[in-house]
Parts: sequence; structure tokens; C-alpha cells
Amino acid sequence: MSFSISLPDGSKKDFESALSVADLAKSIASSLAKAAVAGKVDGEIKPLDFVLDQDCEVAIITDKDAEGLAVLRDSAAFVFEAVAHKHFAGLRFGTSSAQDDGFYVDTDKDETQISVSELPELEKAMGKAIKAGQAIEHVQLAKSELAEIFKDDPFKLDLLKQEADPVDAYKLGDFVDFGFKALVANTGKIKHFKLLSVAGAYWQGKSSNPMLQRIFGTAFFKEKDLEADLKRRAEIKERDHRTIGRDLDLFFVDPKVGAGLPYWMPKGATIRRVIERYIIDKEVGDGYQHVYTPVLMNLDAYKTSGHWQHYRDDMFPPMDMGDGEMLELRPMNCPSHIQIYKHHIRSYRELPIRIAELGMMHRYEKSGALSGLQRVREMTLNDGHTFVALDQVQEEFAKILKLIMDVYKDFDITDYYFRLSYRDPKNTDKYFANDEMWERSQSMLKGAMDDLGLDYVEAEGEAAFYGPKLDIQTKTALGNDETMSTIQLDFMLPERFGLTYVGEDGQEHRPVMIHRGIVGTMERFIAYLTEIYKGAFPTWLAPEQVNIIPVNLDAHGDYAKKVKEELVKQGFRAEVDFRNEKLGYKIREAQTQKVPYTLVLGDDEMKSGQVNVRKYGQENSEAMPFGQFLVELTDDVKSYSREK
Amino acid sequence: MSFSISLPDGSKKDFESALSVADLAKSIASSLAKAAVAGKVDGEIKPLDFVLDQDCEVAIITDKDAEGLAVLRDSAAFVFEAVAHKHFAGLRFGTSSAQDDGFYVDTDKDETQISVSELPELEKAMGKAIKAGQAIEHVQLAKSELAEIFKDDPFKLDLLKQEADPVDAYKLGDFVDFGFKALVANTGKIKHFKLLSVAGAYWQGKSSNPMLQRIFGTAFFKEKDLEADLKRRAEIKERDHRTIGRDLDLFFVDPKVGAGLPYWMPKGATIRRVIERYIIDKEVGDGYQHVYTPVLMNLDAYKTSGHWQHYRDDMFPPMDMGDGEMLELRPMNCPSHIQIYKHHIRSYRELPIRIAELGMMHRYEKSGALSGLQRVREMTLNDGHTFVALDQVQEEFAKILKLIMDVYKDFDITDYYFRLSYRDPKNTDKYFANDEMWERSQSMLKGAMDDLGLDYVEAEGEAAFYGPKLDIQTKTALGNDETMSTIQLDFMLPERFGLTYVGEDGQEHRPVMIHRGIVGTMERFIAYLTEIYKGAFPTWLAPEQVNIIPVNLDAHGDYAKKVKEELVKQGFRAEVDFRNEKLGYKIREAQTQKVPYTLVLGDDEMKSGQVNVRKYGQENSEAMPFGQFLVELTDDVKSYSREK
Repeated sequence: MSFSISLPDGSKKDFESALSVADLAKSIASSLAKAAVAGKVDGEIKPLDFVLDQDCEVAIITDKDAEGLAVLRDSAAFVFEAVAHKHFAGLRFGTSSAQDDGFYVDTDKDETQISVSELPELEKAMGKAIKAGQAIEHVQLAKSELAEIFKDDPFKLDLLKQEADPVDAYKLGDFVDFGFKALVANTGKIKHFKLLSVAGAYWQGKSSNPMLQRIFGTAFFKEKDLEADLKRRAEIKERDHRTIGRDLDLFFVDPKVGAGLPYWMPKGATIRRVIERYIIDKEVGDGYQHVYTPVLMNLDAYKTSGHWQHYRDDMFPPMDMGDGEMLELRPMNCPSHIQIYKHHIRSYRELPIRIAELGMMHRYEKSGALSGLQRVREMTLNDGHTFVALDQVQEEFAKILKLIMDVYKDFDITDYYFRLSYRDPKNTDKYFANDEMWERSQSMLKGAMDDLGLDYVEAEGEAAFYGPKLDIQTKTALGNDETMSTIQLDFMLPERFGLTYVGEDGQEHRPVMIHRGIVGTMERFIAYLTEIYKGAFPTWLAPEQVNIIPVNLDAHGDYAKKVKEELVKQGFRAEVDFRNEKLGYKIREAQTQKVPYTLVLGDDEMKSGQVNVRKYGQENSEAMPFGQFLVELTDDVKSYSREK
Repeated sequence: MSFSISLPDGSKKDFESALSVADLAKSIASSLAKAAVAGKVDGEIKPLDFVLDQDCEVAIITDKDAEGLAVLRDSAAFVFEAVAHKHFAGLRFGTSSAQDDGFYVDTDKDETQISVSELPELEKAMGKAIKAGQAIEHVQLAKSELAEIFKDDPFKLDLLKQEADPVDAYKLGDFVDFGFKALVANTGKIKHFKLLSVAGAYWQGKSSNPMLQRIFGTAFFKEKDLEADLKRRAEIKERDHRTIGRDLDLFFVDPKVGAGLPYWMPKGATIRRVIERYIIDKEVGDGYQHVYTPVLMNLDAYKTSGHWQHYRDDMFPPMDMGDGEMLELRPMNCPSHIQIYKHHIRSYRELPIRIAELGMMHRYEKSGALSGLQRVREMTLNDGHTFVALDQVQEEFAKILKLIMDVYKDFDITDYYFRLSYRDPKNTDKYFANDEMWERSQSMLKGAMDDLGLDYVEAEGEAAFYGPKLDIQTKTALGNDETMSTIQLDFMLPERFGLTYVGEDGQEHRPVMIHRGIVGTMERFIAYLTEIYKGAFPTWLAPEQVNIIPVNLDAHGDYAKKVKEELVKQGFRAEVDFRNEKLGYKIREAQTQKVPYTLVLGDDEMKSGQVNVRKYGQENSEAMPFGQFLVELTDDVKSYSREK
């Protein structure tokens, strides 16, 4: 026997007799052997005791590798199973797996499922097993043997079917499981782990199957990595717009009455209304003509636009109206705005024509992909289309861009970058065929960016089929990239719908259509704002701007009411807390509800016509004449609550 | 032979031999014989030559009777047919009939249909036949004979099938037709008639049948009645919101992209936006919590509410989402607002809870019933639901009523009356079973009306199944009764959806739900306003409030621009007419477009900082300092343009 093992650095080692992955590591360096958690043999992850006895490529997987982390997390999941199996007699298991984000184990119990309140105890038991440094034994078992072991677990029996006979399995004490590529050889390796949460999960993701209880956890090689991760999770939870939305009573989604269809509670609705009015006024002031168009359209229009052919999976099912008409909930507003354009003969003198709408649209998202206000099936888009002559592209593009940056300033959106997408110059035949339009408009977009002195990323081959575009990418509070705004040129739809304008020469010409969105959908934008503001909306957006607390309901209630009425008369959103609760409790509540201003009104204030003002997040309050407070509040709202 | 004829006054006349209806009239009074146009024999209209030869009841129909007018109009339709038949060889006829509003004749030609431009000529020919005083002969013809006459007219052959053999027919010269109950004996009787318009109409009203051309006309016994009717029609046309909507470019509906689905052009959208903001602010100020809820809901909710069982024909087809969910475009917003109520445990301390929304809804109307903004398939309702304890009904009802009357004042709606609907006291088992609720709430509604000193009509048995209600009936510009506002108590839905609140006693109680609408749907309300204002919207609603005309574009264009910018900055809607047109033309245009203020700016104005103001509909203009105009305009808008 003689074989050769290729290593990642390109070197080869020859061996005369079989050896394990662990042995190989040891033969290279003892430090490597210590760090090793598994091997990658001809591209497949194998446990350390895997026997090498022929020519192969091997990499030693250590705690530095992402694959090593996955082995660690699989091992943690396995240890969790062993512990939970001991804890709950007859517990059944579905899939267990490491994830990018930690690990999960699906469980099923006869009566109540494992609850989040049981996690600390289970975590403690896991800690014990880990501290004990127990061996995790890799064994090969006959399928029939495993079938006997799991005879009361239909999920495991189902999973067993996919395995080859004999099956790679692992043992911890008398607990056995299979389905892992590799586990660490000793529980002691796991050390830094945490059980996190539980959630229902359908067996194999199908809603017709039973619902199992999925336990989430995570594990790291290093303590500081676990700590950073837990901190990040706390941050996510604190900023999660679903959590904040529930705590501040902004919105809810109830799959029983409609998956992905949000209900905006009064406070969330107020935020949305303020934003909607702001954006409409801003656009009207910038030359847009706001319209209302129907959410339904004859399906034929979406055949003309091409949406039905290319986008059908994301569309709602058409409705047969019984008189030959098929109606479709619109997935986009472009064909509707095209109807507005086409309703009159247009002259070059009118261009650019700017049509805008808060357009409600419907898109079919799989129910598993739905999430709060972030991913929904019904949404209202801050949509707009401008129709221009080709030589107006640069000026109009710059104008839109300025509007977008203006809006960003008002919402204090500062973390963003520009991405300009061109067609692929090597594959121009993949795009709408009009070389002149592409060349001129791409250089106009670039020219506008340069004129404005803006930095941008250029992405060749990232343009849409129908034209080049600019995307403005923001960073969400959780650090994800998200397209907030977009300006897309479209040469195709004007062609497909036969749009024209009469030029100075009296002839018909084809306009260019520009799709543009400033803040995207109301749903996603407010999810975004909720997260960047952590629910503490600036005064101009806050659903309740001023919370008024009379020190004593009988003595100061009327004064509080008078102050409120004056505020409301001036157009502010103010409430008096008339509840029979302690003063301290009410002040804390106003902070929890993140109300920008809390006014506490007692004898002193009443006598002097003052108010005692506490700004959100500040320790101290300040007494001032009511008139002065009004001036400050007015200024705050008018300046979009920007720091001075 | 001996028989007896009973007359309408109760008297009886005996006759020994047969006589015609005309003879009977003559035997009563010669003036009656002259006025007679037909007879009503045992309840059926018969021609004057109808032979009476047995016991019967007979009334002589004269030009004073509505039935006489119908005979006259049938006769006019018949004369039109005879004339048109001569005029267009091979013309086919569908149904011809008198209507409340005149008469119509359905026609069909091989190539182009009869057009409105041909009506004057046909009217002239009818006039000739009428002046000639030709006899209209009543004959009985065998079916086979008529089938031969109409062998090239499939519609008449179809109609012939419903007739008994032989068939009552009428002849004018060599023209024959059937299907009329009675016609006048001589064309001379018709005299005062008019052909009005043409429109397409499907044969037998089915869209799968061929489209015929329907010719509308009218006829009266007296010239002054015809004149009054034509005046009314001109008035209707002048006020018709569809005509005004087109002329002022407010909206359009295009059945090719969606029947009954209006597109709001920028000007119409502006009016709607102003109204929407007004109504939301008004409601929020009155204690309503505005929300946004989805236009789609799980069909199950409409089964719970009972809408699906009782209202399905008016609903859109459900959409199968493929994952077991059936979604329905909502026909009403009540179940949505119930979700908002149910989202929290409610306490008696919170009541009344007032939820409001501009709620988009969809109702399936037959395409033939659709009309402009008046009858549509997609609509946005100024909807609201308040949830109260039973003993709060009176106070809440009065509060809603005051809000409604407040809004009416702002829109200058003055022609309305109240209708209070109770359950039928003799059939209480036809209504939702809760005697106490009915008795107490009915007397509370009545009490509130009396307290407010309002007159009202009481309608027993007109309540809904689920509770008593108040309707506020307005008169449209065309004199039709229309329910503008409604306050409906509902005992049923709180039961069906299991709504509760925790009372002072700590127990669960059932709230009463009040459905209320102030101005109805945006679509119908704006149709109504367009008609009562004749398109001359008051300044606060006008899409363009100020039209600025520079006397000379070069010399005064900049001043005009400056004036406009100042107006826009102050929140007004102003435009400069920069077109290369004559001054007089522009001033006339501004009047045609019914802009409230036209400013003409020339040398004098520019030098003195003045503006020359012409109010809509006024002959004279007035020069004033721009500052003064601003004050007047501000006052106009703030006061909802009410006359002082």
C-alpha cells in the first residue's frame, strides 16, 4: 500500500499505511492537530477519525475556517439533542443543522412544545455536558439498527430513508443521532454557546405538515466572538421594526385575515400620513402632477407591457369579471401612468411631463418570505414617471437626483452611496436595441453625476434590459444594503405602448420614460425609519409629539386640557395622560413610548403659565413659559427636527 | 245583447250594442272625446277603436294622464320608425318604447349606424308627416303576414314570437309595425316632439348580442311642457359631471383598460386630495383615529360578517392564493375596522372608540350601470366606525350628526332632509333579536334629533336588519334624492365577531357598533360637487386657484413668475399662462376653465406692485396691491369660500 495526499499549499505527502485525518494533522504540525476540528477530503467534510488510505486532496479544517464553525455548531446542536432527549422522555427530532447565523434543532413533543422559558435549564444541562468533556463517538450503524432506535420518531425515520447503509452516526453516552457530516470529537470543544429562541416550523417547510418547535442557538470558538454576536442580536432586537411596531402599537399583520397585509394602527397611520403629505407636497412643489389611478387594470395592459410574460409568478391571480374582462391587481404603476400620458396628444412644449402617485400595488410573495412591513403583499409606492425628450435626460436626471438628496436631508438619511448601471458593452445585443439612446443617455447620466460632484460606483452589465439606471443604496440600521431610491431610464415601454409627442418640427417623436422612486414603498420606508430611529421618531414625524401629565388630576387637569387644546389648535399632536397612575409611572411611560416632549404641569406651572418640559432621552426637565415652548416646538417641526 | 260598463266615478252605463272606446267617450262628453287618446279596459291600455261588447270597467285616457303621455310617445316612436324606414332602405328595428323620460327606438343599419348629425333631417321629415295629419290605422294581421313583411329583420322576427296570432299592428301609409298597446289615431296629435340623441345599446341588453343604435326623443301634448323639458335637459347636460369632468380634464374612464375604474387627472386629483385632507383633519380633530387597512381580506371574514352569503353578487371574484388562502377585494370596511378594535383588549374607559379611514373598496356593478364617477367599481369611502356602550348611543349619535352638519356648511350643502328608520313594530321578528337594544336606541336617536331641534321624517320598517339608522338625503343638482350621509347602529356585527369591552364591573360587555359616513365615497361626492358647483369649484377646492396672465410675455413674464412664486410659497395653487396667445383668448380660457381668480399683469401693475384681479364670473376686474390680494385670497380659502 502506498498513496499520496495533496495538501492545500500544493505539496504532497506520501504514506505507506492508512491514517486518520487527525493523524495527518499531527504529521504536519502539533499546533495544527490541536486546532483541527475536521478534514475536507476531496471537497467533502469528514470527521477527524476518517481514515485516509488512497490518493486524495485533504485540507485540515480548524477553528479559523467557516467550515470549522459549522462543525462546531452542528456539534452544539447534537449536544442540545442529547441533553433535551434526556430531559423530555419521548422527544422527537426533525432536522438539526448549523446555519450562517448559529444552529437550530427541530423538536416535537406530545403535549406542549418546548417553550422559551425552558431554555435556561436546557442551556445549564448543556453546559454541564460540555464541562465534563465527554467524547462524541463517530460510529457506523446499520439502517435497521437506527430504524429500531427511532421507531417512535416518524421524522427521523423519514430522514433515515435518504441515508446510505451503513449510516454515519454519532454517540454521546447512550444518545445516538445521524445526519451530520462531522462533529468535534469531544464536547469540551464547544464551550462558548448560547440557546436563543424558539419558533414554530413546519416539517420540511410545508404548511400541510405538522408544526414542530424549532430551537435556535449559536456557538463560537472564542468567547469574544460569542459576546459580539449576542450584542449584535440585542441590537437587532432593539431595532427590529416588528418589535418596535408592536411595542409602540404602530401596525400588525395577522395571517388569519391576510398574510403580508399590514393593518396600520392609529399611531403608525399618523406617521405614514405625515410622510405621505410631505412627499406629495415636495413633489408637487417640484413640478410633479399627482394623480390617482386604479389598483386594477385589464390584464391585456400587462401583456403589452411584458409584465405578464416575465413577472407572472410575482403577480396576483387575475379575476374573471364574467363579461370577457380579466382584471389584474397591478404589480407596478407604470402602465397606469402611461394611460395618463396617452389621454392627451402631447407637445414638446409640455415636456418633461412628470406624473406621480402614491400608488398601491400588489405582489405575490411566498408566505415564508413575508416579514412585518419589510416584505408585504400590498404596498403603496412613492412612484413617479417623467416623460422627456432624449436631449432632456441629463437635466431631468439631475433634477430628480437633487430632489432625492433634499428628501434624504429632511429624514436625516446620511449613510448611502450611488451605483450607476450601464449595459454590458460586450453584449449589447442583450439589451433594448437603440445604440444612440444608450450611448447618449449613459453619458448624460455620468455627466450629471460629475456635474454635481458626486462619487459613484459604476456597474457595467447591471443595467435593466430597457435602459441604464442609478440606484441609491442605503445601509439599514442592521448594516444591510438596501436600494432606497432609483432613477431608471426606459426606452422600451414608450415603444410598446406607442407613446409620442409632437415635436417642434410637427412630427411625432418617441419620449424617454424615467421611472423614479424617492423613498420606495411606505411600508418598507417606515420599517427602515423605525429601525434607524429605534422608534424614537423625530418630532415632525412622531405620532404623539407632546405628552401632558397633570401632577394632580383634580387640581391641574383643566390646565393640562387647556394646554393640549392650544397645541392641537396650532396643529400639533398632543395628549393628556388622564389615567389614575402615579406621576413617576406616567413619566416613564412617556419615555417608553418615545414621545419627543413630556410636559409635567403642577401648581408652579399653573400659577406662572409655564410648562415643565422634558425632552425624550434627557435626564433633566426645564421650566419655561408656554409661549416659549410653542416657539421651540414650531421650530423643531419646521426644521424637520434637525440638530442645529 | 246587453252589457254594462263601469266608469271611474263609480257610475255604470248600460249598452244594447257594441261600441268603440271613442264612442263611449263621445257618449259621456264631446270634450272628453276630443281629449281622449286611448282607453283603459279592465286595467289594460287599448286603442280608441277597441270594441266594447261585454261587461267591463273602462277609463278614458286623455292628455292629462301619464298613460296618455306614454301613448303619445309610443306614437312618436312609431312615426319616427315610419319616417326612418323611408329614409334608410333596409333599416331594421329592435324595441321601440315610451319611457318616463321620452321614447327610444333601436335601429340597425348595414354599414354605418344612424348618427346624431342625421337627427335634424329625420326630425324635419317627422314634422312633415305630423303636419299632414295622417291617419294611424289599427289593424290585426296574421303572424305569417308580419313574418313576411319583416323577413329581413331578425330582431322583429324575434319579437314577433312573443305575440299572439293575430297580432295588433299599426299602419302609417305602407309602413307597418306591432308591439304597441295603443297609438293615437292621427299623427296630428303628436305636434310637440324632439329627437334628442343616439347611443349604442346591445340587443336585449346582452353584451354578447349585436349592438344596435338607440335613438332617443321625447314628445308632449303641450308646447310649454316640451320647452320646460328641453330646458331641464340642457341644464342636466351643463351640469353633468361627466361632461364637466372632460372639459375641465378632471378624470376619465376607459373601458378598454377597466370598466368603472376612474383615472383621476392632475386637476381632479387635486380636488380629491384637498377634500381628503380636509375630511381627515376634521375627523382627527373630532376624536377619530385614522388608520390604513388592507383592501384585501381572507374570504372567511366576509363569511363571518355575512357579506358573502347576502352580498356575493356585488362582490369581486375571490382569488385563490394557492396556499389555502382565498383573498377577497373588500366590498366594505367594517370587518377591517373590527380587526383594529379586536387587536387590543378594550376597556369601558376607552369608549367610544372611533376608527376612521379613507377606505378603498370594490363592488361589482354591471357594466351597463357604470357611469362616470357616480357608479364605479373601485371607490374610496369616507368611512368610520365608532364602538360605544349602549348608554353612549345618544351622545355619540348627536356628536356624529354635528360633525356632518359642520362639514355640510363648509361645502355649502344646504338642500337636505333627515330620515330616521326604525324596525317595523309589527314584525319585530324580522330584525336582529334584542328588544332592549332596539327600544332604547331608537328612542335615543329620536331624542338626539329632538334635542338638536331638527325636523325629520320617520320611516317605520325601513331600518336595516341589524339596527336603526339615520339617513341624510340631499338633492342632487338634477333634483334626484341621494343619500349623502348615514349613521347606522349595528347590534349584529359585534355579536358575530365576538367584540367585547371590559366594563366597570370587570365583566365582558358587548359594544354597539355605529357605521357612519359623512360625504360617502370620494367618487360620488366629487361627482355631486361638480354638478352643484357646475364645475366652478370654490377657491379652497379649485385645482387652479389663480391664473396669471402677463400682458406681454417679454415685458411682464418675470413679474408674473415672481407673483406666482410668492403665491405658491404661501401654499396657493397658481399658474402663469405663458402661451403665445392673445390676451383676450387667455382671459376667456381662464373663465372656461372656471379659475376663481385671474390676474392680468401689465406695465401699470408691474410699476406699482399691483395686480389686476378678475373674479370668476364677474365682468369687471379690479386693480389692488398684491398684498391686499393675498389677504383676500387667504381669507377666501380659510373661510371655505363662503359668501360673507
